[in-house]
Amino acid sequence: MLAITNCSQILTLRGPARARGGAEMRDLGIIENGTILVDDEQITAAGAALKIPRGAEVIDAGGRVAMPGFVDAHTHPVFAGSRADEFEQRVAGASYAEIAARGGGIRSTVRKTRAATEQQLFEVASRHARLFLRCGTTTIEAKSGYGLTMNDELKQLRVIRRLDAEGLIRAVPTFLGAHEVPDEYRGRTREYVELVVREMLPRVAEQSLAEYCDVFCEPGIFGVLETRLILQAARSLGLGIRMHVDQLSDSNGAALAAELQAATADHLECTDSAGIAALREAGVQPVLLPGATYMLPSDAYPDARSMIDDGLPLVLATDFNPGSSPTPSMTMILSIAATQMRVLSSEAITATTVNAAYSLNRGDRIGTLEAGKLADIVIHDVPDYRELAYVFGIEHAWRVFLGGRLVFSRE
Amino acid sequence: MLAITNCSQILTLRGPARARGGAEMRDLGIIENGTILVDDEQITAAGAALKIPRGAEVIDAGGRVAMPGFVDAHTHPVFAGSRADEFEQRVAGASYAEIAARGGGIRSTVRKTRAATEQQLFEVASRHARLFLRCGTTTIEAKSGYGLTMNDELKQLRVIRRLDAEGLIRAVPTFLGAHEVPDEYRGRTREYVELVVREMLPRVAEQSLAEYCDVFCEPGIFGVLETRLILQAARSLGLGIRMHVDQLSDSNGAALAAELQAATADHLECTDSAGIAALREAGVQPVLLPGATYMLPSDAYPDARSMIDDGLPLVLATDFNPGSSPTPSMTMILSIAATQMRVLSSEAITATTVNAAYSLNRGDRIGTLEAGKLADIVIHDVPDYRELAYVFGIEHAWRVFLGGRLVFSRE
Repeated sequence: MLAITNCSQILTLRGPARARGGAEMRDLGIIENGTILVDDEQITAAGAALKIPRGAEVIDAGGRVAMPGFVDAHTHPVFAGSRADEFEQRVAGASYAEIAARGGGIRSTVRKTRAATEQQLFEVASRHARLFLRCGTTTIEAKSGYGLTMNDELKQLRVIRRLDAEGLIRAVPTFLGAHEVPDEYRGRTREYVELVVREMLPRVAEQSLAEYCDVFCEPGIFGVLETRLILQAARSLGLGIRMHVDQLSDSNGAALAAELQAATADHLECTDSAGIAALREAGVQPVLLPGATYMLPSDAYPDARSMIDDGLPLVLATDFNPGSSPTPSMTMILSIAATQMRVLSSEAITATTVNAAYSLNRGDRIGTLEAGKLADIVIHDVPDYRELAYVFGIEHAWRVFLGGRLVFSRE
Repeated sequence: MLAITNCSQILTLRGPARARGGAEMRDLGIIENGTILVDDEQITAAGAALKIPRGAEVIDAGGRVAMPGFVDAHTHPVFAGSRADEFEQRVAGASYAEIAARGGGIRSTVRKTRAATEQQLFEVASRHARLFLRCGTTTIEAKSGYGLTMNDELKQLRVIRRLDAEGLIRAVPTFLGAHEVPDEYRGRTREYVELVVREMLPRVAEQSLAEYCDVFCEPGIFGVLETRLILQAARSLGLGIRMHVDQLSDSNGAALAAELQAATADHLECTDSAGIAALREAGVQPVLLPGATYMLPSDAYPDARSMIDDGLPLVLATDFNPGSSPTPSMTMILSIAATQMRVLSSEAITATTVNAAYSLNRGDRIGTLEAGKLADIVIHDVPDYRELAYVFGIEHAWRVFLGGRLVFSRE
């Protein structure tokens, strides 16, 4: 038994057993001066005047804020190499096209990831998992997509499974074989799509290596027809659907996500209001990735304010990856969402906990602090949750519990 | 004796004994696979093939980057209370004027700071000093300005002196009695200026509580005439001059800084090219504070690119304060400078080490890693300095030394 006492605020996120939109997103179910009781890996109670069971280990939160561990619903954590050099080239004025022409971009990461052994990738991914925990994130959705061959995609997915199995972090695997057309298939996209559909997807499903399938749907990469082909095949194999849509141009990706009943439509920087309406009607959750807009840099942040006000059960995520958004910090995403998109801290916390958990089909187990949920708890070194977005650029997490087990601690 | 070995890169910043502009800012004087030797509080050598003296304590940097501790040349670290609530109001759409009308803004911090005891302020400031160290900053310029009475200004300045004297961080004190017109002098600005000039400044000088005097020069707060009056008095008492200019409007503050031969002109969001030229001719260092622009939020970042290319010895700082820029993280400033202002990592590192040190009249002692300099050294948990700006939102510092003494360490 574990008792976390003296929490200035417990953000329970209790409420309806579903993802939330509109005004619901501002209700964090706060308990002031509260205590959380944990038995083994589950929460047994969260309240203001709880009796501490005899023999319980007591953690005094010292007037800090406790909340569910962040659930990061869009990450690319398994890769080799850094692209800091390309970042500097971009700062110096080089365009993406110029960098790609020099062999940079996703293809540079693909080359290095293919060359890495599974053990090397696991070591890098373990370091990334550690960074996520330091930032208060206890669950990540984790995509493959830097292999782009059967063996290299399976290698990445096995690394994701191992992160989860060894308890380094909770990891929900997504197969993203259609992240880019690999060099050896350049000009033969349709053949690569065949490979994904006929060979990779069946093997991934057979080995239960992924819960979701994702496609980078963008003109010139994978168009609407190719995306539909891949995702219908994924669905028929029992996989859920997530999609990269409308990041660089509005190609009706949101409408396609609605048609395919995807769990999420991610990015949406260029989606028009008809696309947003289609998502709402189909019950597809939007996943916004403001870190990538900040890094680009661009002022074209997606219209989170309208999505929330229109009742969409918004999700915010880091898009952690070596190119467009190398931050593992969800509190940084809260800051960017607040300053650049006018998303309140309460709304952003709902978007990064309970809403993200439902987008991953795990709303029954994580994302809130309620009796029966897994004890994935972060204590932040702040007295009020609004400090998390306000004091930006630092790491706020002070203690992190994964299923009741202390996995990160700082002075 | 201390030997820091196995540094993938030592950013020595060696070079001319002055602040640097133009292409000079891109030369970090990098030693690869280097070692730093420290005797007592000073560096005795930094090089690639140094013999480790017998009996030296060896710190294995493990292939990480070592560089001078950041020098943050513009901070407001001594205050009471948080303004996270006002931040949320701004995100929700309230204007500064509305927040001020409700008693918010600087005046809210002044009320709380006046009500706090010197010991309470010291405890808060000590926590802030700890945050700076965690982010790799070993020297801060620290302003008063939330007291706005004789006693409350002296109280803040004594807290700054104590931070430095107790070795929590190096702190360079700046008297900012003219930060705002206090409520009790509203409509009687000239009388408040008299108080600053006739009573506060002489006492500050007599007690040697400040090295610099700063004024918030802005129409409606302290205009050009009042600013000149205060700063001429400060100069005659032997204080150096720093100035908040042209933040909200272009009121020729940069020209005034040039006329008064200020050490620095800070903010400069609205300064025109004539103002920049005046700074260059007068040898006044520009101090840019992109965190405040990010938080506002605004797209109107000052034109750092032109200033660097025109040869001005640019400084970048956090503006750490409870309202407009609550980040203590200099690597966050590197990130914003890179993504939003197209400042290269090398330039930004020069701007936050050696250039900042010269702006504080300490270029002979800190800001570079050279024999004879103080051993203010940060080892960052990255293999290449370009990662510092690229991976944003986390804390990179792994070990921090202040005058050869280990003051921060993380796993």
